[in-house]
Amino acid sequence: MSPRLSLNQATIKRATLREALDTTRTAGIAGIGLWREPVAEVGVDDAVRLVADSGLRVSSLCRGGFFTAPEGEERVVALDDNRRAIEETAALAAAGADGSAAALVLVAGGLPAGDRDLAGARERVRDAIGALEDDASAAGVTLAIEPLHPMYAADRAVVSTLGQAIDIAEQFGPAVGVVVDTFHVWWDPQVLEQIARAGRGGRIASYQVCDWITPLPADVLLARGVPGDGHIDFGPLGAAVRDAGWTGDVEVEIFHQDIWDAPFAEVAARVAVAFDRWIEPTLV
Amino acid sequence: MSPRLSLNQATIKRATLREALDTTRTAGIAGIGLWREPVAEVGVDDAVRLVADSGLRVSSLCRGGFFTAPEGEERVVALDDNRRAIEETAALAAAGADGSAAALVLVAGGLPAGDRDLAGARERVRDAIGALEDDASAAGVTLAIEPLHPMYAADRAVVSTLGQAIDIAEQFGPAVGVVVDTFHVWWDPQVLEQIARAGRGGRIASYQVCDWITPLPADVLLARGVPGDGHIDFGPLGAAVRDAGWTGDVEVEIFHQDIWDAPFAEVAARVAVAFDRWIEPTLV
Repeated sequence: MSPRLSLNQATIKRATLREALDTTRTAGIAGIGLWREPVAEVGVDDAVRLVADSGLRVSSLCRGGFFTAPEGEERVVALDDNRRAIEETAALAAAGADGSAAALVLVAGGLPAGDRDLAGARERVRDAIGALEDDASAAGVTLAIEPLHPMYAADRAVVSTLGQAIDIAEQFGPAVGVVVDTFHVWWDPQVLEQIARAGRGGRIASYQVCDWITPLPADVLLARGVPGDGHIDFGPLGAAVRDAGWTGDVEVEIFHQDIWDAPFAEVAARVAVAFDRWIEPTLV
Repeated sequence: MSPRLSLNQATIKRATLREALDTTRTAGIAGIGLWREPVAEVGVDDAVRLVADSGLRVSSLCRGGFFTAPEGEERVVALDDNRRAIEETAALAAAGADGSAAALVLVAGGLPAGDRDLAGARERVRDAIGALEDDASAAGVTLAIEPLHPMYAADRAVVSTLGQAIDIAEQFGPAVGVVVDTFHVWWDPQVLEQIARAGRGGRIASYQVCDWITPLPADVLLARGVPGDGHIDFGPLGAAVRDAGWTGDVEVEIFHQDIWDAPFAEVAARVAVAFDRWIEPTLV
């Protein structure tokens, strides 16, 4: 079992927080990536106690962001919600075992309804991060901007490439970083040089892996497969992340109906085997 | 009716070549983008006569490419087929009205089955274009490399960005250019500067428009919508293409089941209206 492996909770989406922590620990996996919804189900205070009792590292909290709305009530609500997410990230990471990362994954959000101004939405993402930087810095939390695959640019995330995410991060201090997620960036002709650039600037806040499977399922959100089941060559990507100096957890985050329908322990075991075969060798 | 409009034949996919030419002319549209399959149905000689009789301009022939296979029989067959496509392009453009473009649209092809070496497949695309350059140049045909949206990188086209396509084109003489297709490039944070770069190098060989609609249909190949029905801001893209010096035809190429199921004349009329509203104003 690789000590670098962290199981992102969305991989066992139907699990409660307690079940996810138990599944991860029982599988011998040392880290977990948490999601806000199952944390909210038990409340943050109880979640903190459960995480502390688990002995697991916390590799990230998913997710903040969704702040492309123009000035107005919706934007104020979004920013307030992100401030709560920052506090949750700090509390959960502090409760995690040594090596836990206080990283809040940010998904930018898509174009507002009826709005085609992509450049404007992208500017509002930058402005929102600027509005949150001091809160994150004060809490010791890294805002981890996640570029999403360009197929989500309209309806989910207007941050579409790693280079674009770094361009935003570099406008701010060290409390702003980026997520490198193989599914979202594997196709990018510039990905290796951008990973190196993120490393030089100290901007890598999270490394997430899963595979790109074809044909794409009817819901393209569910195309994230187990490493080895798809088309991604993890070797060059892992080597680039390693050479960029990333020594933190590596999260496996899978969104796939078959995986979500399987027993939690079986999924955790399968993830561990795939990680040892496809990911661990790329990191050393 | 804009004189710049060309109806890509795939927009009325079920039409024969004769029906497509008739539909286009009857609608008052001056140009058509042809596809090889309906041309092959009647044979190239008859196709040339039909095009000449139509009085239409030919804006492009779709498509060559699919040459990511490694050395061997499959690759030889692919290159030979591309050489035939070059000859067809020259013959059809010569039969078209004044202003016809001898542009062969190239879709690179995806990863070979079981092969995860994306960088290697991309090198083979460049090598294939190198192998075809002299044939194209001798025939007076432009090889128009079309970057496809990154969601097709695994199974359809390993050329994923306009910048990458230009990087390839610039390794060759003026017989190699690029396609700017709004659907494929609209999300790219670098798209405007890359359009300008393509213009400076004289590399724009085709401008194709359609919209990005959400939710994506189950078959993501069929997400190409009528301009105005989706999320793309055609203004900045059209202005960039105009400022880059493109004065040729602008093809409307739609892949959408509802459009394919509609009567041809109705589709042509709808396309013309959408073009006048959403595209023409961006070109002047």
